[in-house]
Formats: sequence, C-alpha cells, structure tokens
Amino acid sequence: MTNDRVFNFSAGPSVMPESVLERAAREMMNYNGSGMSVMEMSHRSKIYQGIFDETKVKLKAALSVPDTHEILFLQGGATLQFAQIPMNLICGKAADYAVTGNFAGKAAREAEKYGTVNVIYDSTSTGHDRIPAQSELKFSENPEYFYYCANNTVYGTEWQYTPHAPCPVVCDMSSDILSRSVDVSKYGMIYAGAQKNMAPAGLTVVIINKSLAGRELAYTPEIMSYKTMIEKDSMLNTPPCWCIYMLGLMLDWLEANGGVEGMAELRKERSAIVYDVLDNSSLFIPHAQRASRSEMNVTFRTLSAELDAEFVKGAASRGLVNLKGHKLTGGLRASLYNAMPIEGAIKLAEYMKEFEVSHV
Amino acid sequence: MTNDRVFNFSAGPSVMPESVLERAAREMMNYNGSGMSVMEMSHRSKIYQGIFDETKVKLKAALSVPDTHEILFLQGGATLQFAQIPMNLICGKAADYAVTGNFAGKAAREAEKYGTVNVIYDSTSTGHDRIPAQSELKFSENPEYFYYCANNTVYGTEWQYTPHAPCPVVCDMSSDILSRSVDVSKYGMIYAGAQKNMAPAGLTVVIINKSLAGRELAYTPEIMSYKTMIEKDSMLNTPPCWCIYMLGLMLDWLEANGGVEGMAELRKERSAIVYDVLDNSSLFIPHAQRASRSEMNVTFRTLSAELDAEFVKGAASRGLVNLKGHKLTGGLRASLYNAMPIEGAIKLAEYMKEFEVSHV
Repeated sequence: MTNDRVFNFSAGPSVMPESVLERAAREMMNYNGSGMSVMEMSHRSKIYQGIFDETKVKLKAALSVPDTHEILFLQGGATLQFAQIPMNLICGKAADYAVTGNFAGKAAREAEKYGTVNVIYDSTSTGHDRIPAQSELKFSENPEYFYYCANNTVYGTEWQYTPHAPCPVVCDMSSDILSRSVDVSKYGMIYAGAQKNMAPAGLTVVIINKSLAGRELAYTPEIMSYKTMIEKDSMLNTPPCWCIYMLGLMLDWLEANGGVEGMAELRKERSAIVYDVLDNSSLFIPHAQRASRSEMNVTFRTLSAELDAEFVKGAASRGLVNLKGHKLTGGLRASLYNAMPIEGAIKLAEYMKEFEVSHV
Repeated sequence: MTNDRVFNFSAGPSVMPESVLERAAREMMNYNGSGMSVMEMSHRSKIYQGIFDETKVKLKAALSVPDTHEILFLQGGATLQFAQIPMNLICGKAADYAVTGNFAGKAAREAEKYGTVNVIYDSTSTGHDRIPAQSELKFSENPEYFYYCANNTVYGTEWQYTPHAPCPVVCDMSSDILSRSVDVSKYGMIYAGAQKNMAPAGLTVVIINKSLAGRELAYTPEIMSYKTMIEKDSMLNTPPCWCIYMLGLMLDWLEANGGVEGMAELRKERSAIVYDVLDNSSLFIPHAQRASRSEMNVTFRTLSAELDAEFVKGAASRGLVNLKGHKLTGGLRASLYNAMPIEGAIKLAEYMKEFEVSHV
C-alpha cells in the first residue's frame, strides 16, 4: 500500500487492488492502441466485444462455470434481482426463503409481490447471529426455488456449505463471490452485485442454469427476462461497459494471485488475524456465533456506542477507515474483501490491541 | 486531440472530452486526499455523498431544473425506462406515443404490457425521415401521458420544438440532453441514458415532476418506483457511483465551455460543417428531411453498400472511426455529440470531399 492510500474496510463499494487501479488509469486515454478510452467505446464495436467476451471467459474459468449455466452482465444490483428472480422463477406459485440477514429479508418481502413466499428459516430473533444447519431447513411442499444469501454483510455471518433443496437453489453471493471455490452446478442461479469482490458498483453478475429461463410472468420488462438476456448475450441494450472492463482487470489480478483457491487462503488468514484479537479480548465482543462467522465481514462492538465511535475515529487517524458498523446493528465492522492486503488486517489487529490496553 | 487518439463518431457510448478523461486518470488512485479511488468508496460515506450531491446540484443548474422536479440517478438504461414509465404512469389506462424512430417504437411496444398504447404518430412508412409538426399530433381522449423521443440516433432526426399535449409530456432525451437549453417545466418527465452526452454507460438520469410519482402498479419492483427513489434520493441501494462521478466531471467541463448554450452553438457549427458537404454532394445522400435534421447524428449514404464500406474503411485509416450506420438502416452515420471537437467535423468534411472527388 503506497503512503497516501488508506486501508479501506468498507462493506461495499470497497477496496480494489492498487495494481488494478493503476492499470485502469494507464489505459484511460488510449486502450490497447484503440485511440480511445473504454468509456468511449461503442458496445457494438469489435474492440469492446473483445473485452466483453474475454471477461466472460475469465469469469467462467475463475468459477469453473459449467456449460449448463450462462453468465449475464446486468444492472440494478441485488435490489433489482429481489424482484427479477421471482418474476422469472416463481411462476405465480411459491418459493422458500432463508432469512439470515437484512438483504435476504428484503428479497423475501419483495418476492411476495409475485407469488407465495415461505420463510423456512429466520434468524431475526437472535439478531441474525447464526446460519442454520442443513437439518434446520424444512422445505415446503413444492417450492419453485430455495433462496438464501451466502454472506450477510450487516451481521457478519456466512454459510459454510451449499444447502441441498428439493428445487433449484438461488443464491445471493454479492459479498463473497470469488473468495472461495463453489460448485456452480449445485445452483440454479447465483448472482452478485459487483461492488465487493468484482468491480465498481453498477454491474450485477448472474450465473443461471439455462433450463430455468423462459418462465417469466407476462408483465416482466423485456430487459428483466433472463431468457431474453441469455439470447442477447446481455446486450439487449448498452451494458455497464466500464464495470465489465474493470471486472476483467480484477479477474487478471485474481488469476495472478492464485485464483479463488488463493483468495480462500487469504480470506482465512486475514479474518483469523482479526478474530484472534476478538477471541482474546475483554473489551471487544464479536457478534456472530463462532461456527457461522463470515471471513468477509467481521462484526463486533465494545461495551458502549461512545467507545465504538472513539475506536472508529482513532482508526481513521491511522488510515484504517470505514470501520463503523451498519446502521441496523451499530457497533463495528471490518470488511476484508479479496483486495484487502494482509497488512491491513495486521494493522487493524495492532490497533485493536492498543485500543484495548488503553481502554480497560 | 493528441496524436494517438482518434475522432470517434460512435452513436454511443461515445467520445468524451480529453480533459475529463485526464482528470479521471489523475484522480484514480487517490480522490481529493481520501486515500482511495471513487470506485472504492462506500456510497454511504461522507466523501461520496459529497460527490453525489454536487453532481445533482451541477445538473440542476446546467438544465435549470425547477424545484417541482426531482433528479434521479438510476440504472438499466432507456430499455428499463420503456417498462418503468408505464409501470409508474399509465395506471392501467392509456398513453399516447409518437413513433419517430427505433427506440420510440420499442418504448411503445413495451408499454403495451401495462396499459393501452395509442400510437398517434408513426413515421415508419417514410423510413423515419421526419418529425411531425405540432398540428399532426392528434391526441387521444384521456391519455395519462404523451411519450416521444427527442432525437433519433438511428435515423438522424430531431424534434425542434417541445410538443404541447393535454397531459404530462414524457421525453427520451438520451441522445441530445445537455446539447441545448430546454424548458424542463414543460415536461412531466425527461430521461436519458448517460452514454452519449453525460457519462459512461450504466447511468440513467430521470428528471420527473414529483407530482407524477406514487401511482405505480402493484407489482412494480421497489427499485422501479419513482416515488421510492425520490424518497431515497436515488440511494435505495448502491447507485452506479463511478458513472455519477464521471457525470460530475462532464458537467464541470460543460460549464467551462459555456453550458448548454455553448453546446448549442457548437452542435450547430459542427453539424453544419457536415450537412454542408452533404447538400453540395452528388455522391452522398442525406437520410433525414431537412427540417427534421438532427444536429447530433448525421445520417447519410452513398449509392451502394460497397462504397459505404469503402468510405468507413478509408475514414478509419485516417483516425475517423465508427462511421458505419446502424444495422437497421445501413449507410453511414456521423454522431457529433457534445465532446466531439469541431476539428473532428472538419476532418470528416475534408475526407468526404476527397472521397467524392475520387469516386465520381
């Protein structure tokens, strides 16, 4: 990390690798001899089509996406998917949702506009501090799909397994995609807002089993039909070209750093550094139950909101920024996405220990 | 234009000012002492909120948006608006559409999912070569709104007036917004995909009279409700942060170059240089009727597709790129958006004249 840059623990949009940003700056005025910026390129031009196609190929390779599944580059974030998923998949019938956090809850409420929503697991009563075991998932009679959110940024919990279901599994992987290997074939659909581990905000990646497409409700906007977007290779209209280009740069960086396996090692190492401080602290209180802990977002607090605020302020003065918890929970949160250097976790741990010494 | 850059006549995404790109590159690693790129900023951070707010203020000033209207920064492009507009405004009843080109036609077809669409003007039979006079617009009994597209990129025609209607006027201004002054108070809603005169692809600007919001159909996705987005100041979820930042840079450039009045002079000057060649040519045939000509997109052709292709190829070898016409029309098209230097129009005119001399 160069001297004038901070360690950015934001939950998203979030830190990107310096080398990726440097490359984007370098290619800004003239991409690869084209005489123009990627931001100026017609999405129908040969040169941009090349960027688009290569990015798809790289993502397919990084996540080992099988040929049964199609990768789509969409817009609107997870929030549009909350509606788009039931519009396309619920067929006016029912779907099962596991509500393990804020965004899964929003998804379930939005889906009620389009069919029957069965919330088959809800951790609200314990402050979303845990992930259910497979045995706790009691599916309904004939769900069209089962929906869950792999990693809960607000509460700092993460599914450690891919749930089995008697129907296609749909997963919001916004905040831990590309951080570990997943067996994509086990999913009907995976989607992710790009602004944590993939690219700047404004791109939504959907990976869908093609056999699920084509059952959308009659009033589904054309651009929200997965079938149409599969047929048009995400180019029914102008895609978010710059974000897709940035995803390509991120995937080059990912590959150079060991791919998703490399990222899985790094996330374990980074989060262990911070959890280790929490587990040996008499000041800091971790939020998530141990077995449900996220390796992407570490949530904790001190005994008072005043002390939390002092911690955030002191951290910022050392270049450790965005450690304030989500407004729903208060407290503190350290988001440790793919691009967070180990050094950032070490500096944070050091500061936590110093803060504890001077405040107990 | 520096030596290694081309003149980019793409219909969109399209040319941006060099100084804007240079500034974006310069601010890439560390925006304004924040220690991070704008792409890494939490949309809820004070620094990003500042960028967002300032951009809105600048756009409000540039277009003299009255306080009756709200500016929204959305995603999904015009194509999502084709559905979002009727979902919010048609109330299951009827709306009037003027189909003067490809995208207005798409908008009308999409709206049929949500109510009754009266196509009250259609220039299909003459290859969309003209814009109707006010007197040709025969409105239906009780339309909820009247929809038109101000500038038709594919056919090179442009409305030279704001139509009067017995209902709110909704206008797709994607390809000529910020190129001339408009009286926003005359519109119920103006919207524009950003990728021509405003910012990179991935941002849709909506300017809506607040009194029109809140009548959306029951199944409208939350993120597609104008009312919700007005209440949330476009931040129900993560907005396309980078594109909004780039819009801010573009608006600084716009102001430094005379604002929309300055742009209006430039567009007249640029397009006159090219139309003048067309009007004195025995080789090139302009597509649009004279009174309906667009100052943003000049559409023309030679007598054969082979010669058109030769023209495009020869132009590219001189650094004049993306002059091929839309696939629906064939032929040739020069898009002359705000950021196209006068020099680009001059070089194009010179080449056209040379090409004519060597081919008649």
